[in-house]
Amino acid sequence: MTDSAEAPASIIDVARRAGVSPSTVSRSLRGMPNVSEATRQRVMRAAAELSYVASPAASRLASGRTATVGVVVPFMTRWFFAQVVAGAEAVLHEASLDLLLYNLGDAAGRGRFFDRLPLQRRVDAVLLVCVPVNDEERAALRGLGVPIVMVGASSPGFGSVRIDDEQGTAKAVRHLLNLGHERIAMICGLDDDDTLGFATPVLRRQGFERTLLAAGLELGPENVVGAPWGVDGGARAMEQLLASDRLPTAVFAESDEMAFGALWTLRRAGLEVPARISVIGFDDHEMAAVVDLTTIAQPVRPQGEVAATLLLDALAERTGEAAEVVMPTHLVVRGTTGPRPPR
Amino acid sequence: MTDSAEAPASIIDVARRAGVSPSTVSRSLRGMPNVSEATRQRVMRAAAELSYVASPAASRLASGRTATVGVVVPFMTRWFFAQVVAGAEAVLHEASLDLLLYNLGDAAGRGRFFDRLPLQRRVDAVLLVCVPVNDEERAALRGLGVPIVMVGASSPGFGSVRIDDEQGTAKAVRHLLNLGHERIAMICGLDDDDTLGFATPVLRRQGFERTLLAAGLELGPENVVGAPWGVDGGARAMEQLLASDRLPTAVFAESDEMAFGALWTLRRAGLEVPARISVIGFDDHEMAAVVDLTTIAQPVRPQGEVAATLLLDALAERTGEAAEVVMPTHLVVRGTTGPRPPR
Repeated sequence: MTDSAEAPASIIDVARRAGVSPSTVSRSLRGMPNVSEATRQRVMRAAAELSYVASPAASRLASGRTATVGVVVPFMTRWFFAQVVAGAEAVLHEASLDLLLYNLGDAAGRGRFFDRLPLQRRVDAVLLVCVPVNDEERAALRGLGVPIVMVGASSPGFGSVRIDDEQGTAKAVRHLLNLGHERIAMICGLDDDDTLGFATPVLRRQGFERTLLAAGLELGPENVVGAPWGVDGGARAMEQLLASDRLPTAVFAESDEMAFGALWTLRRAGLEVPARISVIGFDDHEMAAVVDLTTIAQPVRPQGEVAATLLLDALAERTGEAAEVVMPTHLVVRGTTGPRPPR
Repeated sequence: MTDSAEAPASIIDVARRAGVSPSTVSRSLRGMPNVSEATRQRVMRAAAELSYVASPAASRLASGRTATVGVVVPFMTRWFFAQVVAGAEAVLHEASLDLLLYNLGDAAGRGRFFDRLPLQRRVDAVLLVCVPVNDEERAALRGLGVPIVMVGASSPGFGSVRIDDEQGTAKAVRHLLNLGHERIAMICGLDDDDTLGFATPVLRRQGFERTLLAAGLELGPENVVGAPWGVDGGARAMEQLLASDRLPTAVFAESDEMAFGALWTLRRAGLEVPARISVIGFDDHEMAAVVDLTTIAQPVRPQGEVAATLLLDALAERTGEAAEVVMPTHLVVRGTTGPRPPR
């Protein structure tokens, strides 16, 4: 990528020149809060120097024939997906683009999507949220002939916005280790249908196991329990742990939603949190603060905002399409984690 | 509506003949749990007598040209909308129909939707979730020339599935009155943009005020506080109440999400629930059980299921399109409501 006048600059170029993240560029140029005046000025200057315009009107976009962007999600009922889409929509609507959402649902729905490609000739660009694709599917998507950006996954030739799930998980586990915990369990979400091939559960489990092993702890099958993804599944997984040989002193849940269920079971069982057992989640769901859950925060709406901006860049024939943006995660300490209880 | 062979029977006819709700018919014919064997048998018999077939394949539907149903929601990030859509999708996918979701967002997005009608020629039927329409908008929708069903609203000539919001609210308020409460406040959700014209907030507020007045209680402006819709708004609204002249002993929140925020504020303020203050919500959100919230339950996914079935009936040229189905609500007592504290 270059600052020269040959190819118009993308949001990635502006971020690099201003020394900030693409998310900060997106928020600065859209006048969103949580950006300092100094940073905003620096971003504006970099954008001006590179002749970068935020949210070009749909009429000015090169391929703006349908004025519609297709968004594909596996399950729209999950908080994460809905938030990513809301972030993308905020950016797309400012550019007067409509959003057509396609919910894959189960494996059959996914099969139908790639067979029929219902977005064909209906959209100018496609955003795939947590839909990893195989070679055949990638070829089918390429055949749509429109820019494609992925959130929570990556694939050669497509733009990508994601977090580092393994690194984020390592932060959660190290927080528990630093509190003195040694008997640490993980609650995993099982999807009815593992042919969907989500990367997140695999990466978070890897992060969990590798961090424990690196700390010199042993890892047995009793360290990991699984139940259907969601609040109810988290409750059931915690019930499995409560019925096990040796109660863990700390639990890492793959997602906040599963952690909520785990906390629910612990409340019903009368086990004090964190005095008897610590719980940490992942995502920083809007309910995490409400139930005082310690968690690993990821920027959810901003991932949708940046992905949508990459699509706008691609539609304006800038260089952003195939960029890969990895966004940061951080530990948020609240009331559900504490020191290992005395034996 | 008739049982004769003149017009094919709809789900409404089957429900009437079997003496059960349309939701029970939908669930029975789809082999879902939570239906007794006796009921299922009765429904199967009624369906057979009326030659009613659940989930006809898309290829057999009269207007099945695009094999796609358009679903229009105001805000897809809200739990309620996502659940309704998930219910509709389960039924539509069984009939091999795809779902194309249009998220209105703000008033500008809504204006664009009715100006451009982006669903035109893209869908065989339209499901509107909580999108009340004026005469002009109704005419525009009629112009699509496809069956239309609404959830959470009704309009002449369109099918409709909803609950009785005013009656549900009355149940919540009467529960508080029966516990001896007299100083009862309501937390309302304010949308950035009240041109969207949602019926629910108006009806729930009416239900609140009418039930208090019917009980002989006085009603002042201090009885109702408003804040932006959502968890954060609920937290802020409860802060307003905590700063008021006379603390209420009980609070009805317009939705569970606002009640969650109210509980969060009360926890931070150290006010015991329900010993010092009772809180009741509305919806029975999946997190309500987790935080032990007393609430008014409404069937959320089933509303989407029944609405989708009405659309299938209409596509199969049965008589279901303009049917109006009102689904029941009920009080769920959990740990956040209790007797009025002694003065």
